[in-house]
Amino acid sequence: MTLLTSWVESANSASTDFPLNNLPYGVFSTNSLEARCGVAIGDQILDMAALEEAGIVVLAEDPVFDVPYWNDVMELGPETWDALRKRLIELLAADAPEQAQVAPHLVPLADARLHMPFVVSEYTDFYAGRHHATNVGTMFRGAENALPPNWLHIPIGYNGRASTVVVSGTDIARPNGQLKAPDADVPHFGPSQRLDIELEMGAIVGTSTEMGQPVTAAQADEMIFGYVLLNDWSARDIQAWEYQPLGPFQSKAFATTISPWIVTKYALEPFRTATPERDFELLPYLQEPGPMLYDIDLSVIMEPEGGEQELIARTNYREMYYSSAQQLAHHSSSGCAMNAGDLLGSGTISGPGKNQRGCLLELTWAGKEPLTLNDGSHRSFLEDGDTMILTGHAQGDGFRIGFGACAGKITPAVEFP
Amino acid sequence: MTLLTSWVESANSASTDFPLNNLPYGVFSTNSLEARCGVAIGDQILDMAALEEAGIVVLAEDPVFDVPYWNDVMELGPETWDALRKRLIELLAADAPEQAQVAPHLVPLADARLHMPFVVSEYTDFYAGRHHATNVGTMFRGAENALPPNWLHIPIGYNGRASTVVVSGTDIARPNGQLKAPDADVPHFGPSQRLDIELEMGAIVGTSTEMGQPVTAAQADEMIFGYVLLNDWSARDIQAWEYQPLGPFQSKAFATTISPWIVTKYALEPFRTATPERDFELLPYLQEPGPMLYDIDLSVIMEPEGGEQELIARTNYREMYYSSAQQLAHHSSSGCAMNAGDLLGSGTISGPGKNQRGCLLELTWAGKEPLTLNDGSHRSFLEDGDTMILTGHAQGDGFRIGFGACAGKITPAVEFP
Repeated sequence: MTLLTSWVESANSASTDFPLNNLPYGVFSTNSLEARCGVAIGDQILDMAALEEAGIVVLAEDPVFDVPYWNDVMELGPETWDALRKRLIELLAADAPEQAQVAPHLVPLADARLHMPFVVSEYTDFYAGRHHATNVGTMFRGAENALPPNWLHIPIGYNGRASTVVVSGTDIARPNGQLKAPDADVPHFGPSQRLDIELEMGAIVGTSTEMGQPVTAAQADEMIFGYVLLNDWSARDIQAWEYQPLGPFQSKAFATTISPWIVTKYALEPFRTATPERDFELLPYLQEPGPMLYDIDLSVIMEPEGGEQELIARTNYREMYYSSAQQLAHHSSSGCAMNAGDLLGSGTISGPGKNQRGCLLELTWAGKEPLTLNDGSHRSFLEDGDTMILTGHAQGDGFRIGFGACAGKITPAVEFP
Repeated sequence: MTLLTSWVESANSASTDFPLNNLPYGVFSTNSLEARCGVAIGDQILDMAALEEAGIVVLAEDPVFDVPYWNDVMELGPETWDALRKRLIELLAADAPEQAQVAPHLVPLADARLHMPFVVSEYTDFYAGRHHATNVGTMFRGAENALPPNWLHIPIGYNGRASTVVVSGTDIARPNGQLKAPDADVPHFGPSQRLDIELEMGAIVGTSTEMGQPVTAAQADEMIFGYVLLNDWSARDIQAWEYQPLGPFQSKAFATTISPWIVTKYALEPFRTATPERDFELLPYLQEPGPMLYDIDLSVIMEPEGGEQELIARTNYREMYYSSAQQLAHHSSSGCAMNAGDLLGSGTISGPGKNQRGCLLELTWAGKEPLTLNDGSHRSFLEDGDTMILTGHAQGDGFRIGFGACAGKITPAVEFP
């Protein structure tokens, strides 16, 4: 596939995240406009609430764009998602007859504040990257027991906390928690000393299922509205002490950051790629009739306080063992009802190489091999003032489908109690 | 404390769950009334939407009772909760001057359908009963390692699934899932054969916290709006295969049943009781300035298809090691934002005795000691057609604060895929 050209000139650059091929969905506000739905195109945002008011894009009897979330559009279902995509391409294409009516509703990205693009119904995080699971398993259980026995059969997941999913740019306070040193008799309470990131993709469920009604991977793929970058901030020391026997809780509940633009399944369609060959045949409900991962180049960038940005890891979403469709199918397998706005974290995405690892725990091998930054400082885990930035894009022929940045800066822990 | 008498005669019986001392909050509908807020009093429901429309109880400028949830009332905060409680007692007391105005807004409980009393923001389940944790730990890890090392320091919890929290009376389809027999090489997919209940209390968070702002147990106690009975349905075979390393997921995601009436903290005030003596002093944020458990008598009743109800276990909420206030404090400790409508399951409530155990896993010792029912049949785990009923009440002097039933019937698994 090649670049679709637009009358919005900045959208025709090979380096923009937001060409006409992309058209991701976000929520923005400006000094004069309240938070509302918008679509990124080049260095501009198309004000969907204004287009709707002007009668240029109308999806339903009641307005759906003059609210600070895309959930209402999700609820309208895949046929409407299709129609919206087609209409937007029509309006923004190089030869669009409506250019004069649409142009007044563009807002420069530089003037906008970006907000959470949707209301998170519930948040679930998975553990579906084989390199990551193998690395972490090797660290904690040894190379021979690295993968738990269920891992090659189940996309392992756990419920996360939706109330602290925040948009890129939100500061992240270092969490406090119960910590126990290996040689201490009892835990103490204080700021985490092993604060980490996890590089993930987030899949957004767009249609609901009824309680009691499971779906297959093929059906699940149809239900996905789009994808974001996701940083599953993790406090490894809180996690180590709390997680047996019922899994991570406060070690991951303090924050999850997502990128501000929902990149739709349509935009990613040309970049589909298959999950890897299986050690064991998957059970029928998890089998994929076609490729359900995507070829998305992913980077982790660190920016120390006052310092420069540097790349600390680079990998690709195609490294995952399970797709989001498989995760969603598994999520519904017991009859668990899924809702529009549910967010599924892919699990940490690591590649086979040392500099392809998606978290500091792996990159520094549990802190034993600290990174050396350009300014000569070392990092085993995050320090106050560090900003962590995830970026990602799918590379087309002369264009890229970008996600925008997923960034957060660490601020000092609050004093408590 | 003694019975407060009401002009609603049925509320003055020593055996009613709903005397004037109680006044629990629910949502009901009838053939002619859409779902709305109501308050149980004896064998009647006070139609709060009608009282509000009539100007008899007005809490805010906009109506808050003509909706099928109590979340709007929660959001008004503890001072309004206080005022509402006082106003209701005033209106329903034996000598109430407004009796004539209020009486037309009573609806017989027998004519009403009961709905979920609130919208569950997020659902978290804990593991805070020492007898339960010891029994389960003994079964799976042996008596010497029964309690995990963190257990006496942390109210262990995990995020559950809010989308499948349902009101008493909702049928529960037996879940399907991945099951692996100990001697099988690979798992298969099919209906759970080890379907269980968990007898719990649910605490409903009524006020919110900001992300990044932890609260102490004392502050957390103030934030709780009320309590319900809660059945955390569990598929033990799905759980056994899936739960390592990240905790229970689909084994508990298919359904959680709650009783239909939110019993307020006010009604339970006279029944406060302290958590037990500690093996280790708790960290400051978990310390309770006063008693924060409640003396609530709890029963588990089984009704086989076409058979009679029989009591299979009886215990008390005061058996817990951690209170809901402690759980909520811990939940916020990392800075996790809490919201009105969050539901916290206490964890399974078991007493020290064999017939005081709150789940079949314990009652039948993992199926090795099946129960014999009155009809001569045996139960290791639940069969299709079984109805499980939880009941609970605090016993006052000549009155009781009851919760109503928390019931669900098992229906056959759906065929899938």
